[in-house]
Amino acid sequence: MTDTDHILSPHATSLSREAGSSLVEQIVQSIASRIDDRLLRTGTRLPSIRQFADQHRVSRFTVVEAYDRLVAQGFLESRRGSGFYVRDRAPMQAPQARHAKQAGSAAPQIDVVWLVRNMFRQMPSQKVPGSGLLPAEWLDSELITSAMRSIGRQNQSALLHYGNPQGFLPLRQQLRLKLAELEIAAMPEQFVTTCGVTQALDVVARHFTQPGDTIFVDDPAWYLMFASFSMLGIKVVGIPRLPDGPDIGKLAELAAVHKPRLFVINSVLHNPTSTSLSAAKAFQVLKIAEQHDFMIVEDDIYCDMHPGTAVQPATRIAALDQLNRVIYLGGFSKTLAASLRVGFIAAPHDIALHLADRKMMTSLTTNELAERIVYRILSEGHYRKHVDRLRGKLDDVREKNVRQLERIGIRINVATPAGMFVWADVGCDSNVLTEKAMAEGWLLAPGSLFSPKQLPTTDMRFNVAAMADPGLIRFLEREIR
Amino acid sequence: MTDTDHILSPHATSLSREAGSSLVEQIVQSIASRIDDRLLRTGTRLPSIRQFADQHRVSRFTVVEAYDRLVAQGFLESRRGSGFYVRDRAPMQAPQARHAKQAGSAAPQIDVVWLVRNMFRQMPSQKVPGSGLLPAEWLDSELITSAMRSIGRQNQSALLHYGNPQGFLPLRQQLRLKLAELEIAAMPEQFVTTCGVTQALDVVARHFTQPGDTIFVDDPAWYLMFASFSMLGIKVVGIPRLPDGPDIGKLAELAAVHKPRLFVINSVLHNPTSTSLSAAKAFQVLKIAEQHDFMIVEDDIYCDMHPGTAVQPATRIAALDQLNRVIYLGGFSKTLAASLRVGFIAAPHDIALHLADRKMMTSLTTNELAERIVYRILSEGHYRKHVDRLRGKLDDVREKNVRQLERIGIRINVATPAGMFVWADVGCDSNVLTEKAMAEGWLLAPGSLFSPKQLPTTDMRFNVAAMADPGLIRFLEREIR
Repeated sequence: MTDTDHILSPHATSLSREAGSSLVEQIVQSIASRIDDRLLRTGTRLPSIRQFADQHRVSRFTVVEAYDRLVAQGFLESRRGSGFYVRDRAPMQAPQARHAKQAGSAAPQIDVVWLVRNMFRQMPSQKVPGSGLLPAEWLDSELITSAMRSIGRQNQSALLHYGNPQGFLPLRQQLRLKLAELEIAAMPEQFVTTCGVTQALDVVARHFTQPGDTIFVDDPAWYLMFASFSMLGIKVVGIPRLPDGPDIGKLAELAAVHKPRLFVINSVLHNPTSTSLSAAKAFQVLKIAEQHDFMIVEDDIYCDMHPGTAVQPATRIAALDQLNRVIYLGGFSKTLAASLRVGFIAAPHDIALHLADRKMMTSLTTNELAERIVYRILSEGHYRKHVDRLRGKLDDVREKNVRQLERIGIRINVATPAGMFVWADVGCDSNVLTEKAMAEGWLLAPGSLFSPKQLPTTDMRFNVAAMADPGLIRFLEREIR
Repeated sequence: MTDTDHILSPHATSLSREAGSSLVEQIVQSIASRIDDRLLRTGTRLPSIRQFADQHRVSRFTVVEAYDRLVAQGFLESRRGSGFYVRDRAPMQAPQARHAKQAGSAAPQIDVVWLVRNMFRQMPSQKVPGSGLLPAEWLDSELITSAMRSIGRQNQSALLHYGNPQGFLPLRQQLRLKLAELEIAAMPEQFVTTCGVTQALDVVARHFTQPGDTIFVDDPAWYLMFASFSMLGIKVVGIPRLPDGPDIGKLAELAAVHKPRLFVINSVLHNPTSTSLSAAKAFQVLKIAEQHDFMIVEDDIYCDMHPGTAVQPATRIAALDQLNRVIYLGGFSKTLAASLRVGFIAAPHDIALHLADRKMMTSLTTNELAERIVYRILSEGHYRKHVDRLRGKLDDVREKNVRQLERIGIRINVATPAGMFVWADVGCDSNVLTEKAMAEGWLLAPGSLFSPKQLPTTDMRFNVAAMADPGLIRFLEREIR
C-alpha cells in the first residue's frame, strides 16, 4: 500500500469508458487536479504502474502513458528504480530584471508598437474595427486541416528535412501560375518564400540599403514598415497617395532630392485607402524609377480581394516591367491564415538568389509544412472559390457599413470603396477618438499610424468585416458630434 | 458533341473505382497527361460537366472538382458561360536579369554560403558527413504527424489567428519546465519563440548592437553567425575554445580591448568540438562579463543530446546567473525537425518584451501551427523518450566511427567524444580534402568554416550519424596518406 491509496482509490478516481476524453486523459486530469488541490502533496509517492492498473482495471500501457504526460507537464517526477513522485511545483521566483521599467508610469501611448501589440490581443472581431485581418469566422479552417490531413498521410519523412531555402518547389510552381494570371512572367527560381510579407520587406530592405539610405513609401501606408525600416537606420520618406496612385510631381521632385534606393508601394487595394494604381500612374512611376535608378517593391498582399478591373481599374507595375526593376511581394495571411506565415518575393533571378542567401542568414529556411499546406490549397483548386466567397461577403458588409458611416456624418475619402478597408474622415482628431474607444473596449486604427511622420489627422481606417457590433456606430455617433 | 469526345471517351479514359487514387485524381491525371502529350491542344474546349459526368458515369461533383484542380494547376481555363478550355502552357520567357552574373565563371568557392547552400541539397545522409543535422531516418515523423492529427481535430479555428508575438503560451509554459530541469528559472513571459536559433541570434544581435560594435564568439564556432553578424556591420572576434570552455586569459584580454556587446557561446556540446563548459569556466566567464559589462548569449541547441554530467561535466552559465546577464537560446531543429523552425529565447523580462517587438518588426509572429506541434510532443511526454533513443543511437555509431577514423590515422581532438560531432585532425589542409570529396559526391565540413577568420586548418568536423557509407573511410584513407 502506498500513501496515496485512499485518494487514488478506484472509488475516488472514477474512470469512465463512455466519457468524451480518453482513459489516459481522465487519469491525467484526475491526478493533476488532486495535486492542484493539494490533496496530493509534494514528495508523495504514487502507486506503481502495476498497482494502479490492477486497481482501476485499465491496461498498464494506459497508466504508463498517463504518468509520462504528468511528468512532462511537471506534476510528477520519475526517480529511477523507485517510482513516481509528486513534484515540487512551488512557483519559481523569476529573477528581477536588471533594467526593469517603472510599471504603470505612463498611460499607453498610441504608436505603432501599441497598435501592433493590441492587434494580437485576440479581442472578438466586432471589437476590432482597426484590425488589418478578416475575422477568423470568415476564413475556412477546414481548408487548412484537410490539407494537413493529406500531408500527414503522404509526405511524412519529407517533413524532417530543412526544406529548400528558396521555398517548397511545388509551391513556387503554383506561384508562377498565380503571377502569370496577373501578366507577370516569373520562373520558380525567381521566388523566395518568406515568413509573411513582413519578413519579405525586412530581407529586401536589408539587401538594398545601408544605414542612412532612403526608402520611399506611400503616405499614408502600412505602419509596421516605418518602425521596421527605422530600426535599420533607414530614412523613410512618404509620397502623397492620390486616388489613382502616387502624386507623380512630388515623386519626381523628392526622388531628385533624396535619391531613394527603394519605393515600397501597394499598387492594388492600397492599405489604408483601398485604392489602386491607374495604368498611366503605373507607367509614370516606372519611368521615374528608371530615371533615378531606384527599385520598386510592389507589395500586393491584398491582391485576391480586388473586385476586378471593371469595378476598380488596377495596374501592377510588375506587369509593365516584368520583374526587372520591380520586386513583387505577396502572401496568404489575409486570405488563408495569418499564423501560417506564408509570404513570398518574386524578383530578378540574380537578386532572388541573393535574397535567399540573406534569408538563410536570418532564419535559414521558412516552415515547409505551412508551405505544403498552401501548395495543396492552391493546387487542388479550393483557393479560388474561397477568395470569391470572401470578396462576395466583403461587398455585402462594405455597402451596409459605408451607408451607416455616412449616415452619422463620417465622410468616406474614396469614390469607389473596395477591398476590406474604408478610409474615412471622422471630422475630429482620430487619436483622441481612438483613446476614447479603447476605454470602451474598441480597437480603432487612427490615421496618424499610417502617416510616415505619425502626424495627427482626422482620417481613420475601418475594417468593414469587423464592424458587426451596432454599438460601434452608436459610439461613433455620440463621440464625433 | 465537342471536339474532345474521341480522346476523352469512356473507353480511352478508363476510370476505376478500385484503383488507389480517387476518381477526381484519375480524371485530373488522365486529362493532364493528354495535354502534356499534345493530344489535347491549346484552345480545345472540354466536354461540359454534365456531358463528362454522364459519359463516364461519375457524379457532376467529381467532374467539377477535377476541372477545378486542372484550372488551378494551369492546364485548363474557365471562360465564364462558355466552358473549360485547354490553356496556353507555352513556357513563359523569364525576363533577363539586369545584373546577371556570368554563369560558370569560377569554380565554387568553399565558404559559408557554399556550405549552407549545399546543406540544403538533400543528398542522402551517408553522403553528408559535413551536415549539422541528424539523418531524417533517425528522426520520428510519426511524432509530428500524430500531433498534427490531434491539432486538426481540436483547434481548428485557433489556427486562423496571428498567434501571440511572444509565442504560443502553452508552449512557453512547457519551455519553463524544460529550463527548470536545467536549474534555470524563467516565467512564460520571459520567452520569445523564433524561427529557429538563427532568427533568435539575428533578433538578439540587432537589439544589442549598432554597426561597428563587436560580438565575441567561440573560435571555432557555428559558421552561419559570422556571415549573419557581418551583414549587420558587426565585428566578430573569436575567443579560443579549450576542452573545458573559453581561454579565460584571452577572453579577459580581448574584452578590455574590444569592449564587446555580446559573447555568443555554446556551453554544452559546443559546435564543432562537442565539448562542454566546466563549472569553474562558467563562473569565470560570467565574472568577466560582469566586469566588462557585456551580455552572454548561451546557445544551447544541442542541449538534449548531452549524455549527462557523469559522462561529460557541463555547466550552463544561465544556471549560475538566472537570466540576468545571460540570454538563453534553444530549439527543436536538431531533435524533432529542422523544417518546423521552432526555436526560442529566454531573457530578462524587459528584454524579452523588446525582443518580441523586434521580432514583430521583422516577421510579425512565427508559425503557430509548428509551435502547437512542439507543445503537444513535449506535453504528452513523447519527447523525453525520443531524445533518449537518439542519444543511445549516437553512442553506438560514435564509438564505431571514432575507432575507424583513428585506425586510418586521423587524430580525434577531444578526450571524451560526445554528442553528434567529432572534431578531428585529418593531418592535411581540410579545404583541399573537402574539394576532393565534393568531386566524389561527399559533403565535408572543413575546419576553416568554423574559424571566425576562415583560416585554413587541418581540423574537420564529422557528423557521426552521417558516416554510414564505408566508402567514406576508404576515401579518407586514400586521400590523407
